[in-house]
Amino acid sequence: MIQPKVLKGFRDSLPLSEIVKKEVIATLEENFSLYGFVPIDTPVLEYTEILLGKGGGETDKQIFHFLDNGKRDVALRFDLTVPFARFMATNLPSLPLPFKRYHIAKVWRGENPQKGRYREFYQCDFDIVGVDSAASDCEILVMMHSALRALGVDDFTIHVAHRGLFNRFLTSLGVVEHSVEILRVVDKLRKIGKEAVSEQLREITQNSEASTQILSYIETDTTKGAFATLEALEKLVGECDELKRLSEIFTLLHHLTIDNSFLLDPSITRGLDYYTGVVFETFLDKLPSIGSICSGGRYNELASLYTKAHLPGVGSSIGLDRLLSALEELKSPLFEEVATGDVIIFNQEEKDLALYLMWAQHLRKEKIRCTLYAEVKKREAQFKYAEQLNIRYALFIDEKGCIVRDLKTRQNSEILTLEESVTSLKRVL
Amino acid sequence: MIQPKVLKGFRDSLPLSEIVKKEVIATLEENFSLYGFVPIDTPVLEYTEILLGKGGGETDKQIFHFLDNGKRDVALRFDLTVPFARFMATNLPSLPLPFKRYHIAKVWRGENPQKGRYREFYQCDFDIVGVDSAASDCEILVMMHSALRALGVDDFTIHVAHRGLFNRFLTSLGVVEHSVEILRVVDKLRKIGKEAVSEQLREITQNSEASTQILSYIETDTTKGAFATLEALEKLVGECDELKRLSEIFTLLHHLTIDNSFLLDPSITRGLDYYTGVVFETFLDKLPSIGSICSGGRYNELASLYTKAHLPGVGSSIGLDRLLSALEELKSPLFEEVATGDVIIFNQEEKDLALYLMWAQHLRKEKIRCTLYAEVKKREAQFKYAEQLNIRYALFIDEKGCIVRDLKTRQNSEILTLEESVTSLKRVL
Repeated sequence: MIQPKVLKGFRDSLPLSEIVKKEVIATLEENFSLYGFVPIDTPVLEYTEILLGKGGGETDKQIFHFLDNGKRDVALRFDLTVPFARFMATNLPSLPLPFKRYHIAKVWRGENPQKGRYREFYQCDFDIVGVDSAASDCEILVMMHSALRALGVDDFTIHVAHRGLFNRFLTSLGVVEHSVEILRVVDKLRKIGKEAVSEQLREITQNSEASTQILSYIETDTTKGAFATLEALEKLVGECDELKRLSEIFTLLHHLTIDNSFLLDPSITRGLDYYTGVVFETFLDKLPSIGSICSGGRYNELASLYTKAHLPGVGSSIGLDRLLSALEELKSPLFEEVATGDVIIFNQEEKDLALYLMWAQHLRKEKIRCTLYAEVKKREAQFKYAEQLNIRYALFIDEKGCIVRDLKTRQNSEILTLEESVTSLKRVL
Repeated sequence: MIQPKVLKGFRDSLPLSEIVKKEVIATLEENFSLYGFVPIDTPVLEYTEILLGKGGGETDKQIFHFLDNGKRDVALRFDLTVPFARFMATNLPSLPLPFKRYHIAKVWRGENPQKGRYREFYQCDFDIVGVDSAASDCEILVMMHSALRALGVDDFTIHVAHRGLFNRFLTSLGVVEHSVEILRVVDKLRKIGKEAVSEQLREITQNSEASTQILSYIETDTTKGAFATLEALEKLVGECDELKRLSEIFTLLHHLTIDNSFLLDPSITRGLDYYTGVVFETFLDKLPSIGSICSGGRYNELASLYTKAHLPGVGSSIGLDRLLSALEELKSPLFEEVATGDVIIFNQEEKDLALYLMWAQHLRKEKIRCTLYAEVKKREAQFKYAEQLNIRYALFIDEKGCIVRDLKTRQNSEILTLEESVTSLKRVL
């Protein structure tokens, strides 16, 4: 006998959590399609060379790669961004531009598993590629907002900043050659605190005046609203296109009357070198500790590793697993009373099987989710089964008709005809 | 620059085909949930030892496997059956029995790619495990029927036979020790024809009388309906439980008035050693050449490699990629006019951006799928874009109101208010 064990960092998805996950994904997909985003898919396996690109990052150690039977060096995708860049380069001639896509799929990383971190997990990415406009920046932000709302998340704040603005500021301070390290340090502000950031900035820049200025930039008072913040930033950086873009975006959000879910927050920089324009992170007001649940930004070159085509874009990514555990912790209705079906037909007599099946067929035509217990068994076993599956209504059927039992209130109906039972079930479901 | 190539046997899924695939999957999932089946998921990677089990088959050569960073021999799943068996063994204590699950997911096989055959493809499996009853055999068959109907497939025939009955017959002929080879040969009847089967049977059994008998069994006249076929089989095999089960199943199908989509066909044996009870295959009446699009059967031991628990079950598998190409070939409405959205707002003036976004927000609240062209551009470019995305209605918005243009008939509306445009769009969408 082989021990039926699952690999470290991997897990099965049992029905109740799988149902919730599917519901969350369906809600997101509906939202994306309302915004004109279209789905794509890419292979799980790609050439390792394509996925690692220039390489040199953490990813190199974490990627699952191997030689296939044809001696090709292949790897499991570790994110959806790199395959998307490759996809754009491969399929460019047949795609409408600007291209608005979403992709919800699994990715794999050989990280050391920790609480809430797995080696196989979902990503949910959406991007508008082929254009650099306030309209597209804004659409991504508005869509993030409506996606979270559609999932029943109300108390969240989307923090927005502009990477290009920050770079311009670093240039004016004469420290832009350290920008990569500076970004990494500033990105840790929330984790390590102001003091530590300040010290590390001084070490990196060897310039205490510049370090002080950077701190005052990322600590700009944001409590008086985006337009006051913009004024403060203008004093530090001067008039420029980046400030104009931010101003346009916040004006649009204000017109849409959703600006109170957004915060212009100069401390947001995102660690990745890749971003060039607006950047954003989303925090749950009631669960700030779990970190950002939806982040992204504008980049200038999506696919320059694979094509000469200039492909600027803006995109965002929802951490689906993190979001799911947040929804669970916030006692989202999504997790309450996940029912695997509406009614169960008790299987009481061999001779009535045809009757049960005909009844079930009728209920299903009426879109009532109906389970027939798969063999004749004691009532207790069937009650327990209904409870395990969280099915609320039991039907006891014979040639005289049907009794509907509410398994929660333990109330029985009169003997009903087929039509009566459908009507009565539709009223309560 | 890295060449953005895709691995041999793998492919990208572009938006229009991805939309159709998602729609087909959503239809199947809705159907499964109406029957009380619940979704599960398992890791894409498992221990190679678990996936190959006893090994020795074609699979050993086709499986993608490798040593991970922890020197574990791991593999990509090559089907959903073996992971399901492992899943049952792992999670048995927390599952309701009988367990009715479905699983729609990708699997990988390093086969040599041919037309319509890829190294990465979808499977769609559904099973009822933990019970051996006519009710569960019947539910699987009925669900196959309603799943295909829900997809708009009408002309199909589900061929049903009983592996146990065939084995009993082989025993009575004294040739049961050759059953594995006999099954493989009989399974090829459609491909290689009667003559070749007859010859190979004689070779295998070294018994021309038995070969003749086997041929007369699999060539039983099936044109007079299931009950006549059952009588003919009874003459060959004698009364037995297997015939009783088949008779029960066809009686139930008759009561449900769907028996004309089923054929009791003794020539169906399914090659796999694994089956012990009913077996079935589904052929499209208008496309028999593509082979079975949905097959399965009853087995006695799902997970005996991994657990001592006795887990009989019945299940079926839809060849999703094959079904999709069949639907396309049959000119299914699913493939006609796949629209990625309902309306497109033309982006004409920078100054009107807030207006466009507000309008879009309103339409989306009304569940109208609305794309805003992501920058100001010439009308021609935006018309071309709408065409590429197969979006039928264009909105031209300014402070006076909105003109709705039907891009198919090239008719413009009057200038409409927001509410009027919603009403008029809802009427036509």
